[in-house]
Amino acid sequence: MERGPKRDGGAPGPAEAGLGGGGESGIPATLAVAAVLPAGGCGERLGGPTPKQFCPVLGRPLISYTLQALQRVSWIKDIVVAVTSENMDMMAAIVQRYRHQRVTLVEAGATRHRSIFNGLKALAGDHPHSQLPTPTVVIIHDAVRPFVEEDVLASVVAAARDHGAAGAIRPLVSTVITPSADGCLEQSLDRAKHRASEMPQAFLFDVIYRAYCQCSDHDMEFGTECLHLALKYCHTKAKLVDGSPDLWKVTYRRDLYAMESIIKDKISQQICVVADTEEDFLQGLLKKELEVQGTSVTLCPNGQDLQKIILGDCYNFVCINTKNSDFQPPRQLLAGLASAAPSPFYPIAVVSVYFLDSQNVSLSEKMKEVMEMKDFAKEIKKQNVFFYGVLICFTQDNPQQLQENVRQGASIAASLIKDRNAGLVGQLLIA
Amino acid sequence: MERGPKRDGGAPGPAEAGLGGGGESGIPATLAVAAVLPAGGCGERLGGPTPKQFCPVLGRPLISYTLQALQRVSWIKDIVVAVTSENMDMMAAIVQRYRHQRVTLVEAGATRHRSIFNGLKALAGDHPHSQLPTPTVVIIHDAVRPFVEEDVLASVVAAARDHGAAGAIRPLVSTVITPSADGCLEQSLDRAKHRASEMPQAFLFDVIYRAYCQCSDHDMEFGTECLHLALKYCHTKAKLVDGSPDLWKVTYRRDLYAMESIIKDKISQQICVVADTEEDFLQGLLKKELEVQGTSVTLCPNGQDLQKIILGDCYNFVCINTKNSDFQPPRQLLAGLASAAPSPFYPIAVVSVYFLDSQNVSLSEKMKEVMEMKDFAKEIKKQNVFFYGVLICFTQDNPQQLQENVRQGASIAASLIKDRNAGLVGQLLIA
Repeated sequence: MERGPKRDGGAPGPAEAGLGGGGESGIPATLAVAAVLPAGGCGERLGGPTPKQFCPVLGRPLISYTLQALQRVSWIKDIVVAVTSENMDMMAAIVQRYRHQRVTLVEAGATRHRSIFNGLKALAGDHPHSQLPTPTVVIIHDAVRPFVEEDVLASVVAAARDHGAAGAIRPLVSTVITPSADGCLEQSLDRAKHRASEMPQAFLFDVIYRAYCQCSDHDMEFGTECLHLALKYCHTKAKLVDGSPDLWKVTYRRDLYAMESIIKDKISQQICVVADTEEDFLQGLLKKELEVQGTSVTLCPNGQDLQKIILGDCYNFVCINTKNSDFQPPRQLLAGLASAAPSPFYPIAVVSVYFLDSQNVSLSEKMKEVMEMKDFAKEIKKQNVFFYGVLICFTQDNPQQLQENVRQGASIAASLIKDRNAGLVGQLLIA
Repeated sequence: MERGPKRDGGAPGPAEAGLGGGGESGIPATLAVAAVLPAGGCGERLGGPTPKQFCPVLGRPLISYTLQALQRVSWIKDIVVAVTSENMDMMAAIVQRYRHQRVTLVEAGATRHRSIFNGLKALAGDHPHSQLPTPTVVIIHDAVRPFVEEDVLASVVAAARDHGAAGAIRPLVSTVITPSADGCLEQSLDRAKHRASEMPQAFLFDVIYRAYCQCSDHDMEFGTECLHLALKYCHTKAKLVDGSPDLWKVTYRRDLYAMESIIKDKISQQICVVADTEEDFLQGLLKKELEVQGTSVTLCPNGQDLQKIILGDCYNFVCINTKNSDFQPPRQLLAGLASAAPSPFYPIAVVSVYFLDSQNVSLSEKMKEVMEMKDFAKEIKKQNVFFYGVLICFTQDNPQQLQENVRQGASIAASLIKDRNAGLVGQLLIA
């Protein structure tokens, strides 16, 4: 495989249009902006064999989330990722599998600063195979800060354009102290007078590239702070921009746990209810109960508007089946899902709700259907769709019981969607 | 309710003997050690109405985890918790509900330093109602650092005894910078030369009490660092002790998520398999498959040794039922659990495994049993037992299918135990 910069071209897909328009951010489309993502670290603080930027979160490598956050910003024209040669193939596969756009891979250096420098070189046209245009402003971000929002990116870019350099900061969580040589407290710094330097940072390309070109070996080996290099070598005082807590760096295993929970939370907020009936009673009841569980619910009675809903980043579907008395999977919905080509970013949860008049139907005939449902679920799990069933039992003469069971069914559906437990796909849960 | 210090007495319970013996830690039982826990904060960084120390994690308030970590260390004789008057009743209820020992409540002050000072006053005998003995060494810890281990507590106490003051430190995750008045970078500190000051800290009681007595109002209002007070007012240079990453402070919502995942992980490590059969085949197969899922498995064939297993902090039980063809709950195991009086700290997961010869038994008669199982599970959930069922289907003529389904059943059981989803209790899952 080619080791020089390789670019996966392509304009932003339709799913991204409107999410990061240049107009809203205040960054004019004419400003040439690129990003460099050093991703050569070995993640020793995590305590596992996989570098943290490649650790799976809901089945997808961490770095893919960060690329997703950058690529949805339309005014970032190129994203240069520096990875070690042994991870180059894996990284190329990630870019392909998750359809990342405007990404170029370069080889990482032995330290963070060397990796960033390699990324900058590819943008400077110094690399023999590079065909990337040199940007006016370059963003430097971490591969392991996946939740960066467009507004903070726009703020650092605008500040860098005006000041030459800019970086996000956060208040300190702990007091910072200086130890003496014998391991005792020498000095404790006033927390109010200091800040934690976070990412993203941005620079006029000329400023940061000149700084790196002048850098000493000592800086390259032991330094960690790009803002410091701009100050030291180009006398550029970076503008500091307040960032949100979401900018935190995934460092320890607990941060991976936190990240997974945040994502599960985020993608569980919105549920689309698709029904095979016009009966308002059931739809309304289920919608109301799901909303009690803390989600926002869209009704999509005829399976129409699915394309719009999927492009609106909905990853959860509750399907009401009243017309069939067998546990048939909602094939119409699933076909609609497949043709809408949802983004491969998150597993889609589909909860199919069935009703059973427990007085009139024996369950013996149902066993075969339950097993078929399991096989079916196993099959579509390969397409990243998690399929679960919920059975609501009722008797004709007890409408109050039906109402209570619909409530329970909604609660179970919400639990399934929130947990997105891969081990339980294909199960039929009973309300 | 009395607002003065109240102490919930009692020696360490049997579950704690041997977990924190003075001998192993190097702290002699004759050294008088107490702890102060300021818990008067309002948790504004969390963005919710509940102060973070009272936020539920797996249903239990965060601060109870921290108390658990301190009380299992037998050589900590008293734990003084400072809470605001409006949270005093709630805190007393938490202490009672989770049977916390050696805990005294005092009223918090308006700032962290004032709360700590109130705690110290109760130990100095300055409080009118206080009857606590004055310790030689006092530990100061945060209510929102729940994973503090005995070894780091012993290290700071030993160092405080020798140096007068000591505190845990961690390497910095971010570079620390000094902003100028106009919000630009003034200076970036060398990360290698600085550390984050964490908790726990420990002091000779006389040193820290004298420091607080001399403290200025400015210190009391704006200061955050106890080590700094010892240095400033008593010229005591604290010894710095390297802490583990687990000492981190629960600050943002993501930290609560991380904490919950860490606890779920921790309590899912060990599973006890209880069987109604001596048949080695099934037990062995299930044990092996559960171990593949990353847990350690103890066999407890006759339900004996349950007391020992529960006292050894096992919170997961898989119950094999081969003798009954109906979905009876494992009453013997549950009675054993109740009489062993497990700690109220974590929900106990019980997965009951049933077998069904799908050729010979019709499922229609099973429906009623399934509903009974749900009602039963709802009932014992009140005692913090999460009960789930797993049904393994087989046919007599296909032993290979049985083996495959046992494998699936083990995988489902492991998923249920790991997720501990309260919304799915009482469900019968099918392998």
